[in-house]
Amino acid sequence: MTGRTFDDAFRADFENLIKWRRDVRRFRSDSVDPELIDHLLKLADLAPSVGLSQPWRFVPVVEEQVRKKIVASYERCNAQALGGYEAGDAKLYAQLKLEGLREAPLQFAVFCDETTDKGKGLGSQTMPETLRYSVVTAAHTFWLAARAYALGVGWVSILEPEVVRSALAVPDKWTLVAYLCVGYPQEEHIDPELERAGWEKRK
Amino acid sequence: MTGRTFDDAFRADFENLIKWRRDVRRFRSDSVDPELIDHLLKLADLAPSVGLSQPWRFVPVVEEQVRKKIVASYERCNAQALGGYEAGDAKLYAQLKLEGLREAPLQFAVFCDETTDKGKGLGSQTMPETLRYSVVTAAHTFWLAARAYALGVGWVSILEPEVVRSALAVPDKWTLVAYLCVGYPQEEHIDPELERAGWEKRK
Repeated sequence: MTGRTFDDAFRADFENLIKWRRDVRRFRSDSVDPELIDHLLKLADLAPSVGLSQPWRFVPVVEEQVRKKIVASYERCNAQALGGYEAGDAKLYAQLKLEGLREAPLQFAVFCDETTDKGKGLGSQTMPETLRYSVVTAAHTFWLAARAYALGVGWVSILEPEVVRSALAVPDKWTLVAYLCVGYPQEEHIDPELERAGWEKRK
Repeated sequence: MTGRTFDDAFRADFENLIKWRRDVRRFRSDSVDPELIDHLLKLADLAPSVGLSQPWRFVPVVEEQVRKKIVASYERCNAQALGGYEAGDAKLYAQLKLEGLREAPLQFAVFCDETTDKGKGLGSQTMPETLRYSVVTAAHTFWLAARAYALGVGWVSILEPEVVRSALAVPDKWTLVAYLCVGYPQEEHIDPELERAGWEKRK
């Protein structure tokens, strides 16, 4: 029964963890100990899931040619997003660094297996989207745990899910939920980077 | 720059927090300090969100007549779910306590404001579902932080989103993402409750 209560010192550190969990886009090229990654993935497995379905599937994105397809997808989506902003916003948007897809030593596409039998559908019949929400809590747990080990994570959402699915040849019924870049960050920020603060202040 | 690094003692406690974050369905009736709840909601505001859109809306469910509508919705959905299981499973399913809707002193319906201008659509144009995923990370942050203060949270997903939305008279474009029951737990469990373990072991 140890470990189930938490003191003020832990709470203060936990709040710092929440504050320092930034979305990282600038990574160092240092490799990451595979045992540490295994440990983080095991912690992610403890995330809440509807009916204990644990539908998350973390697929490492390793091959150069797969990564190139991901970058190309990002570039298509980002050009389209840029085209949707008016001149002033577009200029600022174009300056933002929104992802670390070329630098991050480790990358994971995180899918939801919509067909899992685990949990036998308990709790997810009225709101089937809770299966995908369960995958989000696993990605978020991974992110927080990574930060506790000084790793940075960036979640890239400017991607075509179908392209990612097809580049990795995963089953049809796996939905892309998150794409995570992982590595040691080049810099530490508690606030959004300067160029981004400009974007956020602009009305 | 303090607080951005974490030591082994913190990591061990954080792992315990992840393990002890259970889905609570049996609550004590003790009230919860409103200042603590405000604090937890402020921590939830630090959750990651696509383009810093922060689209989460935590709506307290206080009125007795609204709570009755939520319970009625749960009962309809649960009867339907029960009807979908075959005899052996159905018997076990019927024994499960899946929610604390009648006991939990505090309850929140957590919505995603799909129309928010905050973030100006950054990052959510290709995968608009990331707005709702951002709400999930806020609910999950609230859950973990609550556990650090010895509070229990139970996420109820066996509900009709339309009924919850309408009972609370929230705007049309708010999507129900989570329904959270909050209070001090009657018992502490690191493993699923016994009756539930039976369900999960049954093939």
